[in-house]
Amino acid sequence: MSTIHNYVEKNSTRFLDELKELLRIPSISANPEHRADMVRSAEWLAAHLQELGLKSVNLIELGDKSAPPLVFAETENAGPNAVLIYGHYDVQPVDPLDQWQSDPFDPTLRGDNLYARGASDMKGQIIATLKAVEFVMGQGRQVPLKFLLEGEEEVGSDHLPQFIDDHREMLACAFCLNPDAGMLGPDLPTVTYALRGLAFCEIRLSGPRQDLHSGIFGGAVHNPAQVLCDLLAGMHDSEGRVALPGFYDSVRPLDAAERQELGRLPNDESFYLQHTGVPALWGETGYTPNEQIGGRPTLEINGMQAGFTGEGPKTIIPSEARAKISMRLVPDQDPGEVEQQLRRYLQKRTPATVKWSLEKFDGGPASICDRDAPGVQALSRAMETVWGTRPLFKREGGSIPIVGSLQKYIGAQSILTGFGLPDDNAHSPNEKLHLPTWKKGIETLIHFFNNLGGVAPAG
Amino acid sequence: MSTIHNYVEKNSTRFLDELKELLRIPSISANPEHRADMVRSAEWLAAHLQELGLKSVNLIELGDKSAPPLVFAETENAGPNAVLIYGHYDVQPVDPLDQWQSDPFDPTLRGDNLYARGASDMKGQIIATLKAVEFVMGQGRQVPLKFLLEGEEEVGSDHLPQFIDDHREMLACAFCLNPDAGMLGPDLPTVTYALRGLAFCEIRLSGPRQDLHSGIFGGAVHNPAQVLCDLLAGMHDSEGRVALPGFYDSVRPLDAAERQELGRLPNDESFYLQHTGVPALWGETGYTPNEQIGGRPTLEINGMQAGFTGEGPKTIIPSEARAKISMRLVPDQDPGEVEQQLRRYLQKRTPATVKWSLEKFDGGPASICDRDAPGVQALSRAMETVWGTRPLFKREGGSIPIVGSLQKYIGAQSILTGFGLPDDNAHSPNEKLHLPTWKKGIETLIHFFNNLGGVAPAG
Repeated sequence: MSTIHNYVEKNSTRFLDELKELLRIPSISANPEHRADMVRSAEWLAAHLQELGLKSVNLIELGDKSAPPLVFAETENAGPNAVLIYGHYDVQPVDPLDQWQSDPFDPTLRGDNLYARGASDMKGQIIATLKAVEFVMGQGRQVPLKFLLEGEEEVGSDHLPQFIDDHREMLACAFCLNPDAGMLGPDLPTVTYALRGLAFCEIRLSGPRQDLHSGIFGGAVHNPAQVLCDLLAGMHDSEGRVALPGFYDSVRPLDAAERQELGRLPNDESFYLQHTGVPALWGETGYTPNEQIGGRPTLEINGMQAGFTGEGPKTIIPSEARAKISMRLVPDQDPGEVEQQLRRYLQKRTPATVKWSLEKFDGGPASICDRDAPGVQALSRAMETVWGTRPLFKREGGSIPIVGSLQKYIGAQSILTGFGLPDDNAHSPNEKLHLPTWKKGIETLIHFFNNLGGVAPAG
Repeated sequence: MSTIHNYVEKNSTRFLDELKELLRIPSISANPEHRADMVRSAEWLAAHLQELGLKSVNLIELGDKSAPPLVFAETENAGPNAVLIYGHYDVQPVDPLDQWQSDPFDPTLRGDNLYARGASDMKGQIIATLKAVEFVMGQGRQVPLKFLLEGEEEVGSDHLPQFIDDHREMLACAFCLNPDAGMLGPDLPTVTYALRGLAFCEIRLSGPRQDLHSGIFGGAVHNPAQVLCDLLAGMHDSEGRVALPGFYDSVRPLDAAERQELGRLPNDESFYLQHTGVPALWGETGYTPNEQIGGRPTLEINGMQAGFTGEGPKTIIPSEARAKISMRLVPDQDPGEVEQQLRRYLQKRTPATVKWSLEKFDGGPASICDRDAPGVQALSRAMETVWGTRPLFKREGGSIPIVGSLQKYIGAQSILTGFGLPDDNAHSPNEKLHLPTWKKGIETLIHFFNNLGGVAPAG
């Protein structure tokens, strides 16, 4: 450890200077005026990867020429057994600019923190990874690596799924290391080993051919908004479970060991009360909030609309009613099966007084890494070496498109980690990077690469 | 009968000419440009009432000087036992003008029909009433009468409730004859003896202090839209009854005689299917559509909204959810009691995970005339004399503000009738009046006035 720690300490000023160089390029992907800055960022990274000694380094134009280029690079020995390192070099917009204490693109050190847009999300994480690779390659170790760095993450990664589908062989890997997730605190190194999947759709009910006068027809006509409420209310039971028949059939249970692991997470009920402002929490009976969010599926009404919603009264029976619903899925639920469960429910439960349709059903499955897989263990041991404590193992309740695409097209699992902190102001004014944590992150990644023997799949 | 029939036949050309004069004044209340036409219409009616020999005839300016004036007139013997005749001299707008086959303000005879805006709704009905009064007063009969003719009915009668409240003694009457309702067919004279009341409000639920990411929080937070659906779904039982505890306690049951009477109405299930376009009818078990609409209370969702309702997916847990609901009430439900029933329901059923509020609760009770009351019987016998058939007795599912205000402020019931037909295109292009029915209407009203002995309350 001493060698690694000393290397990072000795070189940390240079590492920081390099990070500052990258941060000075205002690569805001949301703003087309920054097109040239996107290219500059990509070129900076490509040049840096070449300096590190990667064999082939390419800027790849996407079909849509206005999209920022991808940076792809690999080591000489990279093949289907490589570790694929994902990153994004684009950053969020900076407004409101007047709330920044220093220029977002003039990286400024205050105390232990470096302030700049992208410092935490995620140029700091990219540099940390590159500096770890610098050490490892400098030692002559032959870790097979591929880099895929995109410039569209903050605007939805629109072109990435198609690119991955079109380049399955090029991107084939043992697993993906994605350092775009963070830690739960400076002393709480964190491995995110699972994400929920997502399915969403819109339910539409139509009754009368037009809105009706509720006096002239009310009593003999079934109100589509009422039917929609009946149907949506029936989708949960009194235990907070989703009541679509079969919904839990494929759900992988949380075993005792995993529940114990999730029990180590610091986010307790008071955390969720404070962060949501709800008067009381809710959820599936028998599970903690972290389990409910990370390990159990949900069905949510994201929006619904019927009839007149303007000011004042308008006494109508609406002609139609609609709801957008989405389901967060867990392993091993299949979005296609869930769609069928929903269709069967609507088929069986919708009365003959209205017509129903299910629009635009779309979705992707959940993803999970085995916590015992060599890649996860390599990272866990690295964190323990640096922090002196076992990392937290976290299931993330959300979905990350790149993780889903890698899983879908090349069958690769992702290990999510990173050294950003909850108070880093990612996406907000005064984004910052906590440098002591960042340097520990570099050390961790060096240990991680060292810990990988022959690289093996992550989960 | 012969005298009356002959009088109407002999004078029908003059009656028609007088109606045409009134119809040529484009008294569109919705359009401020027609302010002068409103005054002209009112002056025309006032002059006509004076010619008929009514004692005091006044144009009354309302507080808001831009509002069209009221016409008030009464016979010399009018007192609290008078019949109050209600009418409105304003008409609906005429667009789309290009769909009219003749100028809406150039009354045109085609076949048995006179085409003009306001011919049926309701200048034709006003003239019919005036011509019946002309005959009765010409005979020297001393029927105590009051006339209240307004010019704002088609824009909501905004100033009328306050005016009635302020002039209780002036308007005091045995009952109100309101010829603004129609017949169900040319051979189906109709008395509308009941209206439903109305109560409405908005229910608002609030959960998290802002919309939440459904991945990061979904599973541990109760979705306000889901809670709203639960609450609204619970407001009906499986028999189509409103499930608020106590809701039916004050509902006056339909007795066998009344159900038999309502059973004579021609609107059957196929009528309602055709006029609504719904795949199947619905309603409270054990009642026909006419009973459900006329004689039973309802609770309708007029509108509801939560979360994101634009294009595409947005995976949020909405911060709040709201629904506008209205209830059609029947005798002897009290809107204040219904509000308490709703509040108690929300208090008891809303989980601690959200906060609820009930906004802007407002409402008025139902109204009903005793079918055996002298006024109703006088009208019924008059119709039977003219048509040779007992009239239909109808309960109207809607609410009419003037009826509610007269009931509320001066305790007067209204008998609703009229000689318009369902195909008269009221509110549409090519509004018309069926002249044979109209002439029968004049005869009917003459018999009605003759049938009134000493005038007695209607119900």
